[in-house]
Amino acid sequence: MKLPPVISVVGKSGVGKTVFLEKLIAELKGRGLRIGTVKHDVHGFEIDQSGKDSWRHAQAGSDTVVISSPRKVAVIKRLEEELSLDDLVARYLRDVDLVLTEGYKSGPKMKIEVSRRERSQQLISAPQHLIAIVSDHSFDMSVPHFDLDDVAGVADLIVERFLP
Amino acid sequence: MKLPPVISVVGKSGVGKTVFLEKLIAELKGRGLRIGTVKHDVHGFEIDQSGKDSWRHAQAGSDTVVISSPRKVAVIKRLEEELSLDDLVARYLRDVDLVLTEGYKSGPKMKIEVSRRERSQQLISAPQHLIAIVSDHSFDMSVPHFDLDDVAGVADLIVERFLP
Repeated sequence: MKLPPVISVVGKSGVGKTVFLEKLIAELKGRGLRIGTVKHDVHGFEIDQSGKDSWRHAQAGSDTVVISSPRKVAVIKRLEEELSLDDLVARYLRDVDLVLTEGYKSGPKMKIEVSRRERSQQLISAPQHLIAIVSDHSFDMSVPHFDLDDVAGVADLIVERFLP
Repeated sequence: MKLPPVISVVGKSGVGKTVFLEKLIAELKGRGLRIGTVKHDVHGFEIDQSGKDSWRHAQAGSDTVVISSPRKVAVIKRLEEELSLDDLVARYLRDVDLVLTEGYKSGPKMKIEVSRRERSQQLISAPQHLIAIVSDHSFDMSVPHFDLDDVAGVADLIVERFLP
């Protein structure tokens, strides 16, 4: 079974990656696509709420905790070592049309870099992985540039290149 | 690939199912087993924390949100219809030795019923699915009975019958 394409939204901290991603997800959903997202949290995270039954299962030592409801399922799995982005897509994201990640700036996936002049004049992405720059200033590179608000333009590019 | 056995811990509300499960998970983990748990939440649940990036992805419409860190991964998936317990095990719980569920009292899996005299004198499980009764009173049935604290006894039974 074919895996969905993966595009990483990257940029320096504070440039507005999450805001841009929120708008892009909404735009692509509006076009009828199924979207998966991956947030890379290098420091670890807490997600379940203290005292809930599922939280108590995990505290007691459960390796994988599943919470199942009619409209939503959640899985929290303890790991020996981090899963690669490819592993995550193969395990959990086979049923979407497109995967967007927040983070994974040094990974080998195609990237959209969000940049704002007031944060930095330089890009962090390797040029060969960059498919678009979303920015309020311009760079001397032959990569499509989009304004910070132009999610429709970025969505057009994604659909054209990755979802024919 | 063989799927792990599934045992449902059931009982009337307030009998102490979660407390018993916590102790049983810890006991089985202490024996070196990998344990998965499933909490059936018929009313739906909130798990992610308002305002976090992953929560914002979901609010924007993401169908599946993954949060990946070095020691833990979480997946939150929007569903059109509820996944069956067998689906959940096949998708998310292949890598554990045993799956314990809280809830699924009317499902077809083997069951351990927790019962306390002050809550009810009657069992809710169909006799043919019942492998153990954990209770402070006795029932006229040829099913192994255990005290509310006897997680070691229940763990012995599980290992003997399901994890040879």
